[in-house]
Amino acid sequence: MSLIEQLKFDTNGLIPAITRDAATGEVLMMAFMNAAAVEQTLATGRVHYYSRSRRKLWMKGETSGHVQLVREIRFDCDADCLLISVAQQGAACHTGHHSCFYRTWEETGAQVQGEKTSDPLAAYARQ
Amino acid sequence: MSLIEQLKFDTNGLIPAITRDAATGEVLMMAFMNAAAVEQTLATGRVHYYSRSRRKLWMKGETSGHVQLVREIRFDCDADCLLISVAQQGAACHTGHHSCFYRTWEETGAQVQGEKTSDPLAAYARQ
Repeated sequence: MSLIEQLKFDTNGLIPAITRDAATGEVLMMAFMNAAAVEQTLATGRVHYYSRSRRKLWMKGETSGHVQLVREIRFDCDADCLLISVAQQGAACHTGHHSCFYRTWEETGAQVQGEKTSDPLAAYARQ
Repeated sequence: MSLIEQLKFDTNGLIPAITRDAATGEVLMMAFMNAAAVEQTLATGRVHYYSRSRRKLWMKGETSGHVQLVREIRFDCDADCLLISVAQQGAACHTGHHSCFYRTWEETGAQVQGEKTSDPLAAYARQ
């Protein structure tokens, strides 16, 4: 049975995919995949997602160069969520933070944690 | 601004929430929350989710005793995903594995990683 056949996609044909840094275990981002994104991720070893707003398949880093090289693929007990360990090139977040989860919620409001590891304007202007 | 006001819920009023072990950083599970689940999680310090299949709010561990005590709440750059660090009591997974992501995908198929840390039948029979 292929991975696609094992997975349960939702009524929109999507499955949430969490990526984490293979070296540190840090959670980097969460986005959705459709079957084609899963296939392209397996075939190329680079993480692909499906953009719900743009309604298209995209490779992470196709514009910024901040690609995610697949190191391990896991899926959960219900087979309706993926957890992918990656070697993250540059920053995962378009803001320049290594992880998209750079804000904590405190009683006083949202707090930014850590410094940016990449200059987002430079990354997207590089093309 | 409250956390609820900061977050972007989808067209079904839901937001994906990833939990990780506060001590080890291990990703434990992913499930959905509605606004009431976020409010109950903040109010009680115990993670609550919204079950799409049962269409109701539930507290993780309400049957098994395997509650998740909130240690930190993060949200991503788009404010459409939560990442919550928890002190996991017992196992996060109903199968008895500490994490729901106990299966890796290999070329030869799915492989189970690690031993069960909890007896699932005992946990659910305890009530």
